[in-house]
Amino acid sequence: MTHTFSADDHRWMARALQLAEHGLYTTDPNPRVGCVIVKDGELIGEGAHLKAGEPHAEVHALRMAGEQARGATAYVTLEPCSHHGKTPPCAEALVKAGVGRVVAAMQDPNPLVAGRGLARLQDVGIDTAHGLLESQARSLNPGFISRMERGRPYVRLKLASSLDGRTAMQSGESQWITGAAARSDVQRLRARSSAVLTGVDTVLMDNASLTVRAAQLGLPDAEAERAAERQPLRVVLDSQLRLPASTAMLSLPGSTLVATAQLDNQPSAIALSASGAQVLSLPGADGRVDLSALLSWLAQHAQCNELLIECGATLAGSVLSEGLVDELVLYMAPTLLGSSARPLFELPLDEMAQQYRLQLTDRRQLGDDLRLTLSCRQENN
Amino acid sequence: MTHTFSADDHRWMARALQLAEHGLYTTDPNPRVGCVIVKDGELIGEGAHLKAGEPHAEVHALRMAGEQARGATAYVTLEPCSHHGKTPPCAEALVKAGVGRVVAAMQDPNPLVAGRGLARLQDVGIDTAHGLLESQARSLNPGFISRMERGRPYVRLKLASSLDGRTAMQSGESQWITGAAARSDVQRLRARSSAVLTGVDTVLMDNASLTVRAAQLGLPDAEAERAAERQPLRVVLDSQLRLPASTAMLSLPGSTLVATAQLDNQPSAIALSASGAQVLSLPGADGRVDLSALLSWLAQHAQCNELLIECGATLAGSVLSEGLVDELVLYMAPTLLGSSARPLFELPLDEMAQQYRLQLTDRRQLGDDLRLTLSCRQENN
Repeated sequence: MTHTFSADDHRWMARALQLAEHGLYTTDPNPRVGCVIVKDGELIGEGAHLKAGEPHAEVHALRMAGEQARGATAYVTLEPCSHHGKTPPCAEALVKAGVGRVVAAMQDPNPLVAGRGLARLQDVGIDTAHGLLESQARSLNPGFISRMERGRPYVRLKLASSLDGRTAMQSGESQWITGAAARSDVQRLRARSSAVLTGVDTVLMDNASLTVRAAQLGLPDAEAERAAERQPLRVVLDSQLRLPASTAMLSLPGSTLVATAQLDNQPSAIALSASGAQVLSLPGADGRVDLSALLSWLAQHAQCNELLIECGATLAGSVLSEGLVDELVLYMAPTLLGSSARPLFELPLDEMAQQYRLQLTDRRQLGDDLRLTLSCRQENN
Repeated sequence: MTHTFSADDHRWMARALQLAEHGLYTTDPNPRVGCVIVKDGELIGEGAHLKAGEPHAEVHALRMAGEQARGATAYVTLEPCSHHGKTPPCAEALVKAGVGRVVAAMQDPNPLVAGRGLARLQDVGIDTAHGLLESQARSLNPGFISRMERGRPYVRLKLASSLDGRTAMQSGESQWITGAAARSDVQRLRARSSAVLTGVDTVLMDNASLTVRAAQLGLPDAEAERAAERQPLRVVLDSQLRLPASTAMLSLPGSTLVATAQLDNQPSAIALSASGAQVLSLPGADGRVDLSALLSWLAQHAQCNELLIECGATLAGSVLSEGLVDELVLYMAPTLLGSSARPLFELPLDEMAQQYRLQLTDRRQLGDDLRLTLSCRQENN
């Protein structure tokens, strides 16, 4: 069915979408959801889901509306749930409150339950509609949607380079190409991600921690503290299990997963496990980790919505050429590092026909640097 | 002296600056200049210099104002000239018209005559001021100012690359990295330049013409026709005089200068001259053309204001490392060409301390591509 939405409908849903953003760093593994309840043109309740295990957006908004909710319209950025999870189903709460109309920006992306929440509402005579500002609602939760629809996380590849596409000098020297504002933005990318993946060489060479640090998020203090409470899962690609059990990362807040192509009952695997890492054996071709299998595993076993990859040229070239990257986030500093410096991607191509054409979806200035966001749905190859 | 300018002063000068833009493609080798004449808060005359040999901006504006100019204020983007050139001095015309006040955005950049035009006006009791929106006025005429102040053109280096900083595949295949909108923008860069410089290899391999083509300027027809009437001087760097006298470029509209490190009485030089090229011998170190001497020559003998360099990685690396580039204009396509493709600059650097840090002054989208404009006043090295 096709619905016609009024200008007011758009306005209220836009507000619900804004509310949903409050959960950007904290709802994981749940989706970010906002809800607005309106009666006679007046806002009477609003809320956002803030943290897994805590009330959903609809519950917050219904509590605020109280008795007035009877006959009101509820705008939700995601179809209300119809199943018992950690909290009772929101569809029931809406029925109980006696709302007259429910507008959802999008249906539940889980194909097994899509439409059920709205159907439950319709069954009791509530007017329902969906599809209002749907693309905005989808862009709030690319990871949750990807996990539900494709059984794999939404993969964001973050790289930092000079104007001439170089990430480090030949020696490896790279600190700092980009400025503080860009590095703070990377912290926010980490904070919104379920997991951060890198290669073992990056850990060994740069002593990368992959943690979210409240002080570097560039957010108001209280928000930064909340965001840093949840550390994304750290995933280290380590085909040969070269990561020492003494690695600093293993004693930092949060969990570390070491993905290897070796058997996971080797002495090094046992030592890593004893140091608190989870070791996962996913051998693929050429003695490497099967990246595609790893993504599936992360979605299924770690409820991984958004995965951030921070890595060097070799791994960047691999994930790109294997078609595993959904979005490239490129921080570009206004500097030239020259022709012997290291490339962004280890990716040998011979002909223009093999190029990877991307779609620029966002660009902005961060201090002296540029941030380019590109969708990797490739036109060619 | 320091002047205080009113909001109205700013408004009228902003209009004069807009008018000056009308001459962007056509005043060469003269500067782009606009003039507005205001009396009792009303605009009574305006004009722009459009073409060398034709009237200056002040003359157009005074003609429009007629008798009303008496006691009025004239806003000019550049100090009125006080010398007889192809046209009589504008300072005299303003005196004769009886204006009461003259505001110039900037003084004449020629240190030998700076201030003389305004002094002439002051001598006869006209109120004068300068320095209003001066930086905007300077950015209208970077080339004219550079030639007057530094005795060399303003040098713009134009490059087109992928996101990963590559200009072509290893084979040389490069058509087309950027789209039609970016290529049209390059045509406009050529059209505003006094000269376009490239290396002989670019001419030999790509059969580059370096001409301005009216149909590709992306301007209204009449404006495009006027812009393409004047072809920028084509400058080919050809140390060894390898350019054949039969090169297509030599029979195109406009003039070609071949800069060489060989003697200019060689048979190949004589053949090129016979085909209409001017051959200029400027031997520098290592058997190459002395680029710095070439820039001075272009300013002094060809009245070259803005020089556009369109070249490959070798020449780009040379002019950058010799500190000859004022501005980098980088057209960046949202594509990846991979790590074996050709670099932007042949520029081997070893340490981060040697990097070339630039200042991003403008960025915009042209079709699918980005155009980044960077000032090359280097912080380091």
